[in-house]
Amino acid sequence: MKRKHCVAVLMALIVAAMVCGCSAVGGALRADPLPSWNDGTVKKNIFHFVKEVTDSDGTFYVPPDDRIAVFDNDGTLWCEKPLYVPTVFVLHGLSKRAEDHPELRSRQPYKAVWEKDYGYFETLSEQELYQLTVEPFTGMTQTEYVAMAGHFLKKARHQRFKVPYTSLVYQPMVELLSYLASNDFEVFIVSGGMAGLMRAFSREVYDIPPERVIGTSAMFDYTKRDGKAVLIRKDTLVEPICDWDGKAINIQLRIGRRPICAAGNSTGDLEMLEFTADGGAPRLILLVHHDDDEREYKYDAGAEKALDMAKARNWNIVSMKSDFNVMFPFEKPR
Amino acid sequence: MKRKHCVAVLMALIVAAMVCGCSAVGGALRADPLPSWNDGTVKKNIFHFVKEVTDSDGTFYVPPDDRIAVFDNDGTLWCEKPLYVPTVFVLHGLSKRAEDHPELRSRQPYKAVWEKDYGYFETLSEQELYQLTVEPFTGMTQTEYVAMAGHFLKKARHQRFKVPYTSLVYQPMVELLSYLASNDFEVFIVSGGMAGLMRAFSREVYDIPPERVIGTSAMFDYTKRDGKAVLIRKDTLVEPICDWDGKAINIQLRIGRRPICAAGNSTGDLEMLEFTADGGAPRLILLVHHDDDEREYKYDAGAEKALDMAKARNWNIVSMKSDFNVMFPFEKPR
Repeated sequence: MKRKHCVAVLMALIVAAMVCGCSAVGGALRADPLPSWNDGTVKKNIFHFVKEVTDSDGTFYVPPDDRIAVFDNDGTLWCEKPLYVPTVFVLHGLSKRAEDHPELRSRQPYKAVWEKDYGYFETLSEQELYQLTVEPFTGMTQTEYVAMAGHFLKKARHQRFKVPYTSLVYQPMVELLSYLASNDFEVFIVSGGMAGLMRAFSREVYDIPPERVIGTSAMFDYTKRDGKAVLIRKDTLVEPICDWDGKAINIQLRIGRRPICAAGNSTGDLEMLEFTADGGAPRLILLVHHDDDEREYKYDAGAEKALDMAKARNWNIVSMKSDFNVMFPFEKPR
Repeated sequence: MKRKHCVAVLMALIVAAMVCGCSAVGGALRADPLPSWNDGTVKKNIFHFVKEVTDSDGTFYVPPDDRIAVFDNDGTLWCEKPLYVPTVFVLHGLSKRAEDHPELRSRQPYKAVWEKDYGYFETLSEQELYQLTVEPFTGMTQTEYVAMAGHFLKKARHQRFKVPYTSLVYQPMVELLSYLASNDFEVFIVSGGMAGLMRAFSREVYDIPPERVIGTSAMFDYTKRDGKAVLIRKDTLVEPICDWDGKAINIQLRIGRRPICAAGNSTGDLEMLEFTADGGAPRLILLVHHDDDEREYKYDAGAEKALDMAKARNWNIVSMKSDFNVMFPFEKPR
């Protein structure tokens, strides 16, 4: 009787496993994990790469622990035109501070914002522009900063598309993040944008938690408020700034090893792409090319060197016009 | 016939689920996840805390995404006496470099190591000692550095216990890391020790991957070797150093939010413990107290302020003598 019971349970388990197994395989055969990508070389290369590194019997198998992927944010995961969102947030911060502190309105950079003299910002060097990302938020706790960023992202609207900036993420790239994650990749954002601003939406929009967002940041002062430990934003930047060679350096400092997949869109991403590519094979290197002025923007400015390098090294140049079936999540497929 | 088949499969699934479910519950009831901890207040508090934050119907539930735990390394996870392992590795590096470059033997700090004048190091400030952690490794790639660290950890033996340093991790603390991980905590090491040295063993010994090791680090130069991108160690430190208030600041920079659990053993951990404790409730704060000179070492030096604070704020003081049933993994339970 007891033995009969065991056999019954065993049979039940086998049947259950067969039923579950078959339906899972059926599902996988049916579903395209990248429906917003058009069929083409890039999509084929993505599938080929993931197949190679996840095939435990293959030559190019990479164990899950080493499946690191890094993605730039502005222009790679979301729209960066006509202005970087980080820049819009800084202008918002400067304007807010000038509103609250009239005495600041006569000195730069507050004067320029208050008088809407945006030409002033074009006279600044890249280092000075990065310095501006900390200026209007100095003295805030990071909690206050992230709350302000969250409020800004909720209220602000893109001037052309009239939607929140977080609606202007590229649907095919979001699918790619998710496809890599489902293949046991650990995906990081590595961006010149401010870490606190990205962390205000990265989990909700990209399913990437704060600790996997590497960006530019203010230094902090450890102090007490109402007897409790808090960190207060200083007016200096943490070095290295997360742009150009600073992207590769921050990857080493934070992640501690080379990625096997990297995606960017501009010359600021060049060292990150190169550092990833030069680590061995196989690699998936993507350069998002803005060539669709109908659905987004068309520009090569700031990406010339990266495009040359991508051609020379046979990296994947993603044509937004041809490779993306859908641009933004709110669009219908063509 | 078809319907009968469906019912059979459904029954099979129900039986299978019941069998699996029961045996899992039985297993959980039997196994103590912290067998190397003696029963006592600290062990009780650990279980109570984990129960509270994982009970989705309770007042103190914390979703898995926010279950962040931070652990100091030296003196908290492994033995730091009679010398910090990072210090032993630096002395090894200085000595190796003096061996290869005779011209260095007449200048400090190489002279002191070459002549075994260890008193020299006692004259240095903490900042100067941290500076020494980059000195002998300047010009190496990080890959070379981590390989050298791995070789050192394999060869070097602790002077009293005659085993590799990686055998001198505290078994109860390793069990705690694993217990937290199994309850969906994301565990980070946050230590003044060098990130590259810890990353050489953290995965194997603690099951913590490189990206969750936050330590002190050299700055890098991005350059090319044989036409390939590499990062070369500079002779400067990345700021802030990961000690004292720098621990709290690095937690904010890297993880982007406050932990709900923190463990340390000395005054260098004070701000990390405070920053964690002041974030709300419930919190699990542990201070490992070295009070067992029979099985390890007995000392309060360097921990006085932390011990006072722990008593004042009712944090968990872990008595290694009373709370640890086993000290090191190679010991038999008492």
